[in-house]
Amino acid sequence: MDIKTLAQQAKDAAITLAALDGSVKDKALDAIAEALLAHKDTVFAANQEDLARSEKEGLAAPLMKRLKFDDKKLNTVVAGIRDLCAMDDPVNVTQRATELDNGLNLYRVSCPIGVIGVIFESRPDALVQISSLCLKSGNAVLLKGGSEAKKTNRALYNLIKEASEAAGAPAGWIQLLETRQDVAEMLGLDEYIDLIIPRGSNSFVRHIMDNSNMPVMGHADGICHVYVDENADVDMAVEIAVDAKTQYVAVCNALETLLVHEGIAKDYLPRMQEAMEAKGVELVGCDRTRSIIDIPAAAEADWDTEYLSLKLSVKVVDDLDDAIDHINRHGSGHTDAIVTPDEEAARRFLSLVDAANVFWNCSTRFSDGYVFGLGAEVGIATGKLHARGPVGMEGLLIYKYKLLGSGQTIYPYAAGEKRYTHQKIDGDCPV
Amino acid sequence: MDIKTLAQQAKDAAITLAALDGSVKDKALDAIAEALLAHKDTVFAANQEDLARSEKEGLAAPLMKRLKFDDKKLNTVVAGIRDLCAMDDPVNVTQRATELDNGLNLYRVSCPIGVIGVIFESRPDALVQISSLCLKSGNAVLLKGGSEAKKTNRALYNLIKEASEAAGAPAGWIQLLETRQDVAEMLGLDEYIDLIIPRGSNSFVRHIMDNSNMPVMGHADGICHVYVDENADVDMAVEIAVDAKTQYVAVCNALETLLVHEGIAKDYLPRMQEAMEAKGVELVGCDRTRSIIDIPAAAEADWDTEYLSLKLSVKVVDDLDDAIDHINRHGSGHTDAIVTPDEEAARRFLSLVDAANVFWNCSTRFSDGYVFGLGAEVGIATGKLHARGPVGMEGLLIYKYKLLGSGQTIYPYAAGEKRYTHQKIDGDCPV
Repeated sequence: MDIKTLAQQAKDAAITLAALDGSVKDKALDAIAEALLAHKDTVFAANQEDLARSEKEGLAAPLMKRLKFDDKKLNTVVAGIRDLCAMDDPVNVTQRATELDNGLNLYRVSCPIGVIGVIFESRPDALVQISSLCLKSGNAVLLKGGSEAKKTNRALYNLIKEASEAAGAPAGWIQLLETRQDVAEMLGLDEYIDLIIPRGSNSFVRHIMDNSNMPVMGHADGICHVYVDENADVDMAVEIAVDAKTQYVAVCNALETLLVHEGIAKDYLPRMQEAMEAKGVELVGCDRTRSIIDIPAAAEADWDTEYLSLKLSVKVVDDLDDAIDHINRHGSGHTDAIVTPDEEAARRFLSLVDAANVFWNCSTRFSDGYVFGLGAEVGIATGKLHARGPVGMEGLLIYKYKLLGSGQTIYPYAAGEKRYTHQKIDGDCPV
Repeated sequence: MDIKTLAQQAKDAAITLAALDGSVKDKALDAIAEALLAHKDTVFAANQEDLARSEKEGLAAPLMKRLKFDDKKLNTVVAGIRDLCAMDDPVNVTQRATELDNGLNLYRVSCPIGVIGVIFESRPDALVQISSLCLKSGNAVLLKGGSEAKKTNRALYNLIKEASEAAGAPAGWIQLLETRQDVAEMLGLDEYIDLIIPRGSNSFVRHIMDNSNMPVMGHADGICHVYVDENADVDMAVEIAVDAKTQYVAVCNALETLLVHEGIAKDYLPRMQEAMEAKGVELVGCDRTRSIIDIPAAAEADWDTEYLSLKLSVKVVDDLDDAIDHINRHGSGHTDAIVTPDEEAARRFLSLVDAANVFWNCSTRFSDGYVFGLGAEVGIATGKLHARGPVGMEGLLIYKYKLLGSGQTIYPYAAGEKRYTHQKIDGDCPV
């Protein structure tokens, strides 16, 4: 079937799904969990095929590890689905209520966005997580996973679709795309798709952002900074920088550029160098840095580079404002941290740095939906609209205004014969 | 100066403005109000030039009326500024607070979006309203008004810029664009501009949406429906339809297509025809409509047309679901209303119709920021992300996460040595 038809089916299903009773959605989620457990051998067999083919094709070891879908990953996704079942229905929640006049009541209520297109990396467990999040939030979903995982994805998709639709989810609410050409087509279907969420490499996300005229929620780069202020505790500032750089280098919230106040550079840089080099980090620096520690020169491009590896660029700055200015020019709006004992400096940094996550005296690595307590994570967004930073289920919801009247026309209000009362109402929307 | 430089200046100013104390913003707003009153003769003189030139160029009477900037309009915008001054600062408001662990506290706080590009119609008072809303919400703004109003806009811009900057607003926070070429350039500056708000004709808004790769908040069409259900009160349904169609035809929330349940069509249509024709409305209809009342046939294109005039398309539908389906296919997601005594039918309509505003037993004309009690209106949005329907100041805000630690690294949490507490915190972010 062509992608446009799949997208049309998803849009039709989205309307019904938006109004589906919460108990039916939970029944469908429960059916998905049961089906995954009951038919796990089918999924594992498909996964073995993917693993065997990918090994033959020489897929790198970390990607092989992500591709693997075993009992442990199954149990994790099933536990995630059970968590979602236990949550209240996030749809049709009254966010605000106002009496406009006697018998004319306005309610702002949450509702799903509609049809979400998700493009994700090699992990097949992401397919289960994303589709169960979409179901709970009442959104239809078009899924495109990594081609390495195509057999596993197809097996998971079949189980999810069958189990959820048998339990009352509208037919067509979940659709699977399987080729790169499918994705290219999807990006032109803004008539049917309301939001694209790309999860994958930076260049891939950038490509999606540049080639789609529908809203995209994601982040192309994570160029994160730690700034060590003049009076910082040197031990703390070394520990935070080393943790942010080395605890897991391949993630978007890892440190890429370290900024150091010139007043503390002589004390801090040698200590930092020793600790970083003990962890195998390759340092490059600005001229002022290199006048204190002996490291290679950073090129201008280093300040705009997300290494995602054991490499770190280091710059000595004049002061707090110089650091803020550097971050706002070169950062990617993801996560930036200041190490300082000075509350005023922290306040200035947190207010003036334009990033989704601004941290004081802790590692940049904390920016994560699970860490933040948001529950299941949709992704991390560095845009400035709708949702920013780690995005939980809230990012899949918007609202509509329901106005309940008793025959009112605008005429008497426009003519000044009646006036709006604009009283706050307690209680939920009755319909 | 070229547009890129203006946009860069606005972006620089936006950083400072985001952190500006609320009292300074209010002082700047107050200074703007005082300057407008003190120098009103300058503005009125500029406006006279615009009016004289536009009259010579044959500008239509309704547009001439919008272009006029007199004492009455001045007093309205000054009152609007005073209202904004009286409001609490909407920036840096703590929306949510969570203890992640002892001494590691997460705060989600409101912040401005950044740099807003606003393109508005001929009314010069819109320039004052939009720029004062942006200032209060901490956003820098690039303004492009209608060319008919260019002298008035320039005079207002000069007063606002001078007064606000003298009172402490950062230099460059407000910028004026003056040509269509400027707008074309602006649409390519997504590096500096975070959001475009176009206000104007449908074709113009559509053009902006299609030619910009930054987020656009607005609505291109307002194809609004009233659906008259089987058991509707005929008098009420006639009154609502006539009000929605005729009270002000040129607005986006006016009625364009009337849907009638076949079970009530014989009673309703003749009464509706009489009332509409008394107001000079030209009706076109589907075959089933025309078998009951004698009106010209509607073409297929009529169901997708926003007339903005005294014309109405009428269709008889099988039932509630047929009406919902028609609206979801042909509507523009703006405002749709049902007239019915039946709560279950209303619930179904309000849940299944995918529109920003879904109304029960009242006129579509109520969808408006002032009517909704939102205060000053940024515009009406029919997108599905960020803000929907009438958008108040909230639409100009997003949030950032501030995480306040005491030296925490991720390592012990990743190693399982420490656990997150995820306790809700009361109170505001201290920095």
